[in-house]
Amino acid sequence: MLFIGESINATRKSVARAIGERDEEAIRELARSQVEAGAHMLDVNAGTGGDGEVEDLKWLVQVVQDEVGVPLSLDSSDPEAIREASRVHEGEPMINSISGEEGKQATLLEIVASMPCKVIALCLDDSGIPDTASERVDLAEKLTSRLETAGVPQDKVFVDPVVLSVATDAGAGPIALETIEKVRDRLPEVNIVVAVSNVGFGLPGREVLNRTFTALAVSRGADTMLADIRDPGVVAGAIAAYTLSGQDPYCGNYLKAYRDGLLS
Amino acid sequence: MLFIGESINATRKSVARAIGERDEEAIRELARSQVEAGAHMLDVNAGTGGDGEVEDLKWLVQVVQDEVGVPLSLDSSDPEAIREASRVHEGEPMINSISGEEGKQATLLEIVASMPCKVIALCLDDSGIPDTASERVDLAEKLTSRLETAGVPQDKVFVDPVVLSVATDAGAGPIALETIEKVRDRLPEVNIVVAVSNVGFGLPGREVLNRTFTALAVSRGADTMLADIRDPGVVAGAIAAYTLSGQDPYCGNYLKAYRDGLLS
Repeated sequence: MLFIGESINATRKSVARAIGERDEEAIRELARSQVEAGAHMLDVNAGTGGDGEVEDLKWLVQVVQDEVGVPLSLDSSDPEAIREASRVHEGEPMINSISGEEGKQATLLEIVASMPCKVIALCLDDSGIPDTASERVDLAEKLTSRLETAGVPQDKVFVDPVVLSVATDAGAGPIALETIEKVRDRLPEVNIVVAVSNVGFGLPGREVLNRTFTALAVSRGADTMLADIRDPGVVAGAIAAYTLSGQDPYCGNYLKAYRDGLLS
Repeated sequence: MLFIGESINATRKSVARAIGERDEEAIRELARSQVEAGAHMLDVNAGTGGDGEVEDLKWLVQVVQDEVGVPLSLDSSDPEAIREASRVHEGEPMINSISGEEGKQATLLEIVASMPCKVIALCLDDSGIPDTASERVDLAEKLTSRLETAGVPQDKVFVDPVVLSVATDAGAGPIALETIEKVRDRLPEVNIVVAVSNVGFGLPGREVLNRTFTALAVSRGADTMLADIRDPGVVAGAIAAYTLSGQDPYCGNYLKAYRDGLLS
């Protein structure tokens, strides 16, 4: 199980402010607290809508890695920001993300071909987000195949089934869960990453939705959580679901997590 | 969703003591706290291993119903205790349980035929607990059919898939979950009850296993939880999983639970 902290994201006002003011300490604290809570990697997103994203993302990468040293998920809709950020990143980054959108795909494939990296493959294309799990899995297969051609082996591909909010579509949960199950079945070598916090967007009490959806996703075969790792319920839910769905013989993973204080 | 409080059970030392000493106040407090936490029904079990179970269960039924007035699940391995307890029970009891064990089945069928009641149908027989979900579902079908012949309609049958501890068998979770899915598919009219707390028997940190397994079970089609309802995580996990698995259009159930303070 891989936990990626989601919190250094410029769509959050406090993070946008910290980036704008080059407030290193605020970013360092966010990095530290997530790694202390169990994050193995951190997502960094500097997309404030202005035109400084390339420089902003490079700055974020340097400050965060100076503080915690973990590998980062470089999260941008601008391929150039990803390219530049990857050049200052130490170690093997995760590219977040490539999708079926043809406009950006060639540049992104060229970037991922140029270095060892992990890649998030998002199940959407120029027609938008498919309404059925089957179409999403077809897209996952197509993307995985193109990534392999570009030199990214399947075990470095992280398929994202696309999680939408259940507030606007009651089917959002089941479609994501069914996509996870089908991807696990058809592409056994790839990883499956779930952006957990999207599922409760617009609803109150989102923490219980986040931790519960984490558990459901793990039980269907997801192995990587992009989530608010500082909520102990998310980590505990993932670990418990892993054990409860038969993936943890003799409960070794569960008992280690208990001893490490991750289940309280 | 139906929540049945599990806590008035003589396998717990404090409850056995309260029964032995006829400590009404201890039992009343256990009844009150479970109903306040959201239990719609309470399970009552007086099986201390001694020979007073028939009288003990009758006493429990009277004390508990005097305090909270909710219907009870009469939980005993002794059909005579169930028969006598049902005579002092007010309203429609739940009989916990009938199984494929032929020795007791005739008496239990006669009891359930004699009054309006709900019945828990346990997926085991004289050969023990089947190792596969398919065999458990076959048993559920057989029991449901016999109960119908005895006058119990399917919507008053509560199939229990049998939950064992993952501490001794890593497959315990998946088999129970698969049984739930298959029963929901093959017997759409019956209810499915899950004895949640069994799943973590022998492990530390059982609360996280309980609330997580509740969520997984609801997402596969379980609708009734026999659980420690006083743990707010169990109720919250069930409600969130119901919404996340597409059963709660417009999130009406979720939002009502939030307003009622059940998701905190």
